[in-house]
Amino acid sequence: MDGSTPHKPARPTARGRLFFANPGPTNIPDSVLLATARASMDFNDPNFLAVYDACVAGLKKVLKTEQHIFFYTASGHGAWEASLVNTLSPGDLVLIPETGYFSDSWAKMCGTLGFEVQMVAADWRRGCDIAAIEAALAADTQHRIKAVCAVHNETAAGTRLPIEQIRAAMDRVNHPALLMADTISSLGSYDFRMDEWGVDVCVGGSQKGLMLPTGFSFNGASEKALAAHRASTHPRHYFDWTEMLGRRHKSFVGTVPITLFYGLQESLRLMLEEEGLENVFARHARLAAGVRAAVQHWSGNNGPQLFCQNPERWSDSVTAILMPEGHNADDLRRVALERFNVSLGGGLGKLGGRVFRIGHLGDLNEPMVIGALGAVEMAMEIAGVPHAKGGVQVALEVYAKSA
Amino acid sequence: MDGSTPHKPARPTARGRLFFANPGPTNIPDSVLLATARASMDFNDPNFLAVYDACVAGLKKVLKTEQHIFFYTASGHGAWEASLVNTLSPGDLVLIPETGYFSDSWAKMCGTLGFEVQMVAADWRRGCDIAAIEAALAADTQHRIKAVCAVHNETAAGTRLPIEQIRAAMDRVNHPALLMADTISSLGSYDFRMDEWGVDVCVGGSQKGLMLPTGFSFNGASEKALAAHRASTHPRHYFDWTEMLGRRHKSFVGTVPITLFYGLQESLRLMLEEEGLENVFARHARLAAGVRAAVQHWSGNNGPQLFCQNPERWSDSVTAILMPEGHNADDLRRVALERFNVSLGGGLGKLGGRVFRIGHLGDLNEPMVIGALGAVEMAMEIAGVPHAKGGVQVALEVYAKSA
Amino acid sequence: MDGSTPHKPARPTARGRLFFANPGPTNIPDSVLLATARASMDFNDPNFLAVYDACVAGLKKVLKTEQHIFFYTASGHGAWEASLVNTLSPGDLVLIPETGYFSDSWAKMCGTLGFEVQMVAADWRRGCDIAAIEAALAADTQHRIKAVCAVHNETAAGTRLPIEQIRAAMDRVNHPALLMADTISSLGSYDFRMDEWGVDVCVGGSQKGLMLPTGFSFNGASEKALAAHRASTHPRHYFDWTEMLGRRHKSFVGTVPITLFYGLQESLRLMLEEEGLENVFARHARLAAGVRAAVQHWSGNNGPQLFCQNPERWSDSVTAILMPEGHNADDLRRVALERFNVSLGGGLGKLGGRVFRIGHLGDLNEPMVIGALGAVEMAMEIAGVPHAKGGVQVALEVYAKSA
Amino acid sequence: MDGSTPHKPARPTARGRLFFANPGPTNIPDSVLLATARASMDFNDPNFLAVYDACVAGLKKVLKTEQHIFFYTASGHGAWEASLVNTLSPGDLVLIPETGYFSDSWAKMCGTLGFEVQMVAADWRRGCDIAAIEAALAADTQHRIKAVCAVHNETAAGTRLPIEQIRAAMDRVNHPALLMADTISSLGSYDFRMDEWGVDVCVGGSQKGLMLPTGFSFNGASEKALAAHRASTHPRHYFDWTEMLGRRHKSFVGTVPITLFYGLQESLRLMLEEEGLENVFARHARLAAGVRAAVQHWSGNNGPQLFCQNPERWSDSVTAILMPEGHNADDLRRVALERFNVSLGGGLGKLGGRVFRIGHLGDLNEPMVIGALGAVEMAMEIAGVPHAKGGVQVALEVYAKSA
Repeated sequence: MDGSTPHKPARPTARGRLFFANPGPTNIPDSVLLATARASMDFNDPNFLAVYDACVAGLKKVLKTEQHIFFYTASGHGAWEASLVNTLSPGDLVLIPETGYFSDSWAKMCGTLGFEVQMVAADWRRGCDIAAIEAALAADTQHRIKAVCAVHNETAAGTRLPIEQIRAAMDRVNHPALLMADTISSLGSYDFRMDEWGVDVCVGGSQKGLMLPTGFSFNGASEKALAAHRASTHPRHYFDWTEMLGRRHKSFVGTVPITLFYGLQESLRLMLEEEGLENVFARHARLAAGVRAAVQHWSGNNGPQLFCQNPERWSDSVTAILMPEGHNADDLRRVALERFNVSLGGGLGKLGGRVFRIGHLGDLNEPMVIGALGAVEMAMEIAGVPHAKGGVQVALEVYAKSA
Repeated sequence: MDGSTPHKPARPTARGRLFFANPGPTNIPDSVLLATARASMDFNDPNFLAVYDACVAGLKKVLKTEQHIFFYTASGHGAWEASLVNTLSPGDLVLIPETGYFSDSWAKMCGTLGFEVQMVAADWRRGCDIAAIEAALAADTQHRIKAVCAVHNETAAGTRLPIEQIRAAMDRVNHPALLMADTISSLGSYDFRMDEWGVDVCVGGSQKGLMLPTGFSFNGASEKALAAHRASTHPRHYFDWTEMLGRRHKSFVGTVPITLFYGLQESLRLMLEEEGLENVFARHARLAAGVRAAVQHWSGNNGPQLFCQNPERWSDSVTAILMPEGHNADDLRRVALERFNVSLGGGLGKLGGRVFRIGHLGDLNEPMVIGALGAVEMAMEIAGVPHAKGGVQVALEVYAKSA
Repeated sequence: MDGSTPHKPARPTARGRLFFANPGPTNIPDSVLLATARASMDFNDPNFLAVYDACVAGLKKVLKTEQHIFFYTASGHGAWEASLVNTLSPGDLVLIPETGYFSDSWAKMCGTLGFEVQMVAADWRRGCDIAAIEAALAADTQHRIKAVCAVHNETAAGTRLPIEQIRAAMDRVNHPALLMADTISSLGSYDFRMDEWGVDVCVGGSQKGLMLPTGFSFNGASEKALAAHRASTHPRHYFDWTEMLGRRHKSFVGTVPITLFYGLQESLRLMLEEEGLENVFARHARLAAGVRAAVQHWSGNNGPQLFCQNPERWSDSVTAILMPEGHNADDLRRVALERFNVSLGGGLGKLGGRVFRIGHLGDLNEPMVIGALGAVEMAMEIAGVPHAKGGVQVALEVYAKSA
Repeated sequence: MDGSTPHKPARPTARGRLFFANPGPTNIPDSVLLATARASMDFNDPNFLAVYDACVAGLKKVLKTEQHIFFYTASGHGAWEASLVNTLSPGDLVLIPETGYFSDSWAKMCGTLGFEVQMVAADWRRGCDIAAIEAALAADTQHRIKAVCAVHNETAAGTRLPIEQIRAAMDRVNHPALLMADTISSLGSYDFRMDEWGVDVCVGGSQKGLMLPTGFSFNGASEKALAAHRASTHPRHYFDWTEMLGRRHKSFVGTVPITLFYGLQESLRLMLEEEGLENVFARHARLAAGVRAAVQHWSGNNGPQLFCQNPERWSDSVTAILMPEGHNADDLRRVALERFNVSLGGGLGKLGGRVFRIGHLGDLNEPMVIGALGAVEMAMEIAGVPHAKGGVQVALEVYAKSA
């Protein structure tokens, strides 16, 4: 039959398109969503294998790697776990530069899984100091540290951690640890170069810059990572690379999420053929600059301010915004959602209620950002949050200049 | 197979969603588009008839009528032609209040089809004077005028013609002509009351306030119109009501556009059940007010101005904007489209190049309008069109107050 | 919002896919349906014009013409009307070879529109005799006949009328009438050659071999037809070619059905690029042969028989099947629909209840036909319709040989 | 933009719908696929939570449980791993009744993860003897066995293992082990009763009887399983129930696969509201009986035969078919796929090449099965596989009687 289920909205509904200014899942192009609605086929059907192989090749271009990719039917946390259990052994020590909620979560996962964790402490608003990372590595003369796990884009703080500088620091002290990079919320939004930067394991997911629904995640893996894998004794099966290497797809223990690969084929076409990867990055940089300019303007009158105080570490995929004292970010988000159908990201962990976040990644353009910023400015007005009026106007000027 | 055709864009593509601020076709909700992608069935299948009958009942609620509806696989122009050929005979005289491009087009069609036309001349920027219409009717003591053909919403001028006042004028002079109303770009956006206002034939289409793709149009028809039909001698077949009355669907000479009725069922659910028709109208009024406030602000510095100079006649579904002397509207539209992926309406007929139009109807909300207005303001900046900056900001204030 | 309307089926629902063995609308590929669900854009947007122009070029290949195409937002009956009103004048005489329900309907339309009709009578089960057509033309020494209107595929009877032979007959008697061909249910299913066969006006629709939903129809028009158009005095507007020639699209009075052109682009890709037009025809011929073999087998035991008794006139897109005396086709169809979710075509006009039809056109393959034939054979068993068992088995053998 | 990626098929393409007679992923209703194409929202949006909570409630009805469900963004193998690592500790012993490829795979996973495995050996063609399971449990007087892991539907062999009889055997010997059931390929196809049968952990996935794309899997968990969880010391994070219980969704470490829940809501509507769960089971039983009757007929002439020789263990969701000596199943499958667009399942593990499988689950009806059986019979003819002709005809008779 041809029926379908009505979505019974829980809140009085605003009409029009939901503005998804929430940093993930992201704005998915219609053409990608429609591609995922194609009928399934056998994942060993030659017609599917052609799609699959093209996707692997395309994704390597996005990762800027010529090494290996392992896919999982899993979300990003699954690929985190896979990166660890495939390369480390029980009790191994990992070094984690503190960036925010996600560095802490990965650290927590390491602990739960039985690895030892050494954090490089940092102010979340400024980002982790590369010198501190280097110092920690230099101090590890026994090379007990087996991996450095760095979050390329800390979505909770709206910050970027320069992976290439961590690689340089490791090289300076000749440290042999694996370099792991969580690129979940950076990949496809701003530049990442797996091979050039000497990343051994990167962690990515479908639902951010690749502009797909949540459903698969993956690791890029270097030859060095594969060697570490062969020595690893951690128990694993679902995420096991060795198991995968024996399969046609060199990935996926179990069935393959066919429909997401239809979608990936289309999103790679959009990124690599229609727009061009460097143009994708330029667009994200342009859009992010407008958002930050608006927030900086709003801050003038004791208003909300950029959470990240270090311009070198600003993220081009998400901006975290610190509320003025005495004002709750979630109240503001509720106004934006209920009155204007704009979904903003909340503060994570200890930033809950104090921070809201504007995601500006994926299939996004200037008027979409302007609409979201407009809703924020109106919601501040309605919720009585102090701010200097005119942030949207400032963003308009930034975009008019850079268009 | 499961492939599909890539859309090869003709212009360097802007990413993100196209903002469709063009007054028709309109912003179609995803759920309506997806409903139209369901597989077809026999149009006499009981499962389809249940959908069809529910759609007819729902559409009568939108028209506020308990009389008849005839559907055509056609665009709005087809329903115009149907309204004429079903009720008039060769040489009959029709009275048409001038409103703009569409009143003139309907008049042209009347002439082509062999009817005589009497226009009630008017200033497009102020709208047709009801007293002038009444005077024309009063002068027609022989009742040669068989129909008054009035465009409820003149989308070319962004004006509303109060049908209820025309009915009152006809009643005052006891004129027996049929009252025909073109509601193509008003229906589902602001109030229309077929039965209460004594409209004999109304003309509507799928692609505006009903939030569907172009594909069917229809006439509401009063008992009086049916009586006129029985006396009409104009040759016709595809649009013939008598032919339709002999069919199960009481509509459609030939096959039925199944998939559009799947979509109509969903759009009626959104309008009648989820949002409520009066809320739909209130939302359109609110959104229109913000657009006009922005334009009025822009006009301050010898900028573009509202084409309609008569506040009583402002349309809530589309705003036409007159460019300053020496500036071409189509140049501005091109900037908005190519740089910001925002599609604005052009000037029609003699307004070509002098006017651009912002459609604000269908599945629309505040941030969508803000995004479109933002693109207009940026495009004016880029194209060197004089204007007072800050129109978007004014709209934000209007919406913050009225949200 | 993201809800959508549940389809509340009127009959106890069979699960699984509806088998649409009804000769139109036809089996639409998923990729075409999904293409029609893309968001609309301005029909003057360069991105749409690129799609549109490609579609016109592709459709000319299907029509095998290098002349003109005029599109209508209309069903096939609209294109019928357009073919007449654009080229004829009131009172003109047309010659119509009788083929069945659709030749009679076109004749009826001619009469309603004010043209004079001369039928060439024929037995529906054998098809109209070319010699009789030639005789009628030869007798028209005054050349009062202005057009010969021939139904290429009479879907009601499941017969083919050889248009090329009519052209030859016209040439033999040097008759100057226009040759019009209704290709609605043949185009894209079996061969049609507009230019080679000297067809002046052909009539086609979206919903059969082009594998699209109902929504647009069109005329191919020769230079000779355009000349006739310039002399025609019939009142018309919505379908008027002159009006269209003044527009960018050279088609469509009024708005353009955007989403159907997205679909057409995809169906043309499937037909012209992926499968190849001649392969499409070969597939239809193969599928049709299996259906006929099954029916011929069933007929053995006083069972249903092929309606068309003339193998030279068998249609490759639809097979009409005559029930044994005392058995109602619609009862059988109801069993197939309610118990097996298979939709068969009914008998039209005077064949109502006596004939059922199996459509075998569009996006169809052997197992789809076998499933439909299986449902017919089971429904005959359940409904107590006499037949020789094993028709499906015979079709399997035909297909195994021809695969 | 609105483009999408063409699927470039690797094999010469057959037109028409792919018949997916492959036991998983399964036939997905169009309405479910379209539901998954809706735009994403925040997984903490109240509008999503309403969908999510309704899905959990509906899925409990399918599982016939009032206990707990934990979801994973993972395929079925992920839920297997989750069932083990959440309830067992390193070195624990599990008892696995041998059923075929999947019992062996689960055993292999247990070993890889560090658990000890005791198999109850069995003939794959007859299914594991309940008495042998009982004997193994009775012999375990020390209660070293911590879990019995039973595959409800062994898709590789086309057999059913009666979980309720295993429960009875455990009760007879008062064995305290957890009872785990893999219901991946039975759930939603034939009856499963978690609470009544005393199942402690069941393992299910989206891509079989629930008629969804691959993408999430889940465990039903009893109170007893939760107690075992609290005592378990296996390292885990991504699949950790304790981690999940601290979250709003009581599931999902990491982001939630939104679009699959849109689809699940629709598939649950189809199963629970439109058809009714017991009717779903009756339909699968009816369809399976026809498939088996056809195969039994084909076997007459030294043809392929039912792999499962024990009628009490026949599966109603998949039938495995053993080829005659000297004939390769994959050659036959290739003919069916390339010539008739019918995808059959292959033999798994040691059955590779010797067995092919017909999946008959999900959104399926009689003509779909007839079409698939027809393709098998034609492919046998073409590939020269001996068989008694007429298997399709036998299936027709079964269905005509049971419709």
